[in-house]
Amino acid sequence: MENLYIIKIGGNIIDNPSKLTQFLQKFSALEGKKILIHGGGKIASQLADKLGLEVKMHKGRRITDQEMLDVVLMVYGGLINKNIVSQLQSLQCNSIGLTGADMNVIRAIKRPVKEIDYGFVGDVTEVNQKALSDLLENGYMPVIAPLTHDGSGLMLNTNADTIASEVAVAMAAVYKTHLLYCFEKKGVLTDVNDENSVIPLLNEQNYAHYLAENVIFAGMIPKLDNAFAALRKGVTQVVIFEADSLSEIEKTAFIGTKIILGK
Amino acid sequence: MENLYIIKIGGNIIDNPSKLTQFLQKFSALEGKKILIHGGGKIASQLADKLGLEVKMHKGRRITDQEMLDVVLMVYGGLINKNIVSQLQSLQCNSIGLTGADMNVIRAIKRPVKEIDYGFVGDVTEVNQKALSDLLENGYMPVIAPLTHDGSGLMLNTNADTIASEVAVAMAAVYKTHLLYCFEKKGVLTDVNDENSVIPLLNEQNYAHYLAENVIFAGMIPKLDNAFAALRKGVTQVVIFEADSLSEIEKTAFIGTKIILGK
Repeated sequence: MENLYIIKIGGNIIDNPSKLTQFLQKFSALEGKKILIHGGGKIASQLADKLGLEVKMHKGRRITDQEMLDVVLMVYGGLINKNIVSQLQSLQCNSIGLTGADMNVIRAIKRPVKEIDYGFVGDVTEVNQKALSDLLENGYMPVIAPLTHDGSGLMLNTNADTIASEVAVAMAAVYKTHLLYCFEKKGVLTDVNDENSVIPLLNEQNYAHYLAENVIFAGMIPKLDNAFAALRKGVTQVVIFEADSLSEIEKTAFIGTKIILGK
Repeated sequence: MENLYIIKIGGNIIDNPSKLTQFLQKFSALEGKKILIHGGGKIASQLADKLGLEVKMHKGRRITDQEMLDVVLMVYGGLINKNIVSQLQSLQCNSIGLTGADMNVIRAIKRPVKEIDYGFVGDVTEVNQKALSDLLENGYMPVIAPLTHDGSGLMLNTNADTIASEVAVAMAAVYKTHLLYCFEKKGVLTDVNDENSVIPLLNEQNYAHYLAENVIFAGMIPKLDNAFAALRKGVTQVVIFEADSLSEIEKTAFIGTKIILGK
């Protein structure tokens, strides 16, 4: 099977125009087929602020009411997505910006209300592997905003990490799929203050150990749980690393934190 | 050649959610291949107002500074485009939202500064007929926002009427192309206050006459000039009519104002 890179970039890159441009240069230069998934960064919250909307969060997740849904549609689906696509076009990377609604690429259901009503937040139910493969085979690189739809006309706000892993799992049916999470650190660190404390390899055994010892905690846990779930569903490898190192990903196996199932 | 409908909807439909939904139902029901081009409506100006930006106009055209460019990227490329696409998906119309940057579909140059600096406004230089045809042949209906790109990373604000006629001209190379302008009146009227005064047929002869008599004036002139230009470049017909009548377009030749070259 052919290689496919599914690359997720987070807010710290999106919020910094020069970092974003540097990253997009490296993304363009990466040979072969690739899909970019971008988060939202602080721009949505800043716009909400300017509009006098209250930003509501629960455990690090945004609560999306109707007005906030409009904000994320505008910022993720419009501003950020089109800025990325136009920059990639200038770098000869023929990209196409997508939300889950476009080509029916990602379906979701509005998250059921339990203790918390997250509002217009979607849990992914289906990724349209065929539509994404058609684009890739025709030379177009999808750039996916963290937005899905429910098939009944409703757009939904969806976590970008989750979209990345769901897309990687779906594409694993037809490609050798590498799921790459680019962020601001060199990898998963044993000491957040020491960039040299990268854990080079995480498997299920030492992950359990790090969790028990509280070495890995907070926002990193759902990311890693997602990573292991993706591997169990056929993704070849998951790597968490610094965006600056993207150009090295093809050349060396020793970069960031590589996550695998076994030993 | 196969028929292709290029349908442009304006602000009065976009600004009215129930009218938009009714229109999209008719658009979905229209058989065969079709491309939807949407304008912006008042939402961009309303957002600009809320953000304390000054809306600058010159002869009915918006002057687009950097902040206003961000607003139209958000509103046209995000909010409006994705609301339309998700509604079409719910109507079993497999649509894909595009700006000119996506798949490099529409290139433009930033309008040269003469007496007026229009800012980030693009004049179309090239429509990627191949990319649009590929989508249509694969069963996807493009929904195009009035935004283009310059190929150097810059997004540009572009008049939706112009995009519609440029797309129609480009597609005329491979389809029998019908350019349909949907608006709030039954057609081009000889008396703006009388909906029964529709001019059924406009050709170059009677158009010149109506212009000389000041029967046709103001905003209708660039629209009609565009229409005649499109016909001269191979578009089969141009029809200006009321959005409500879209479902009749296949059944009757007598709807709205039909624009043709000769007698």
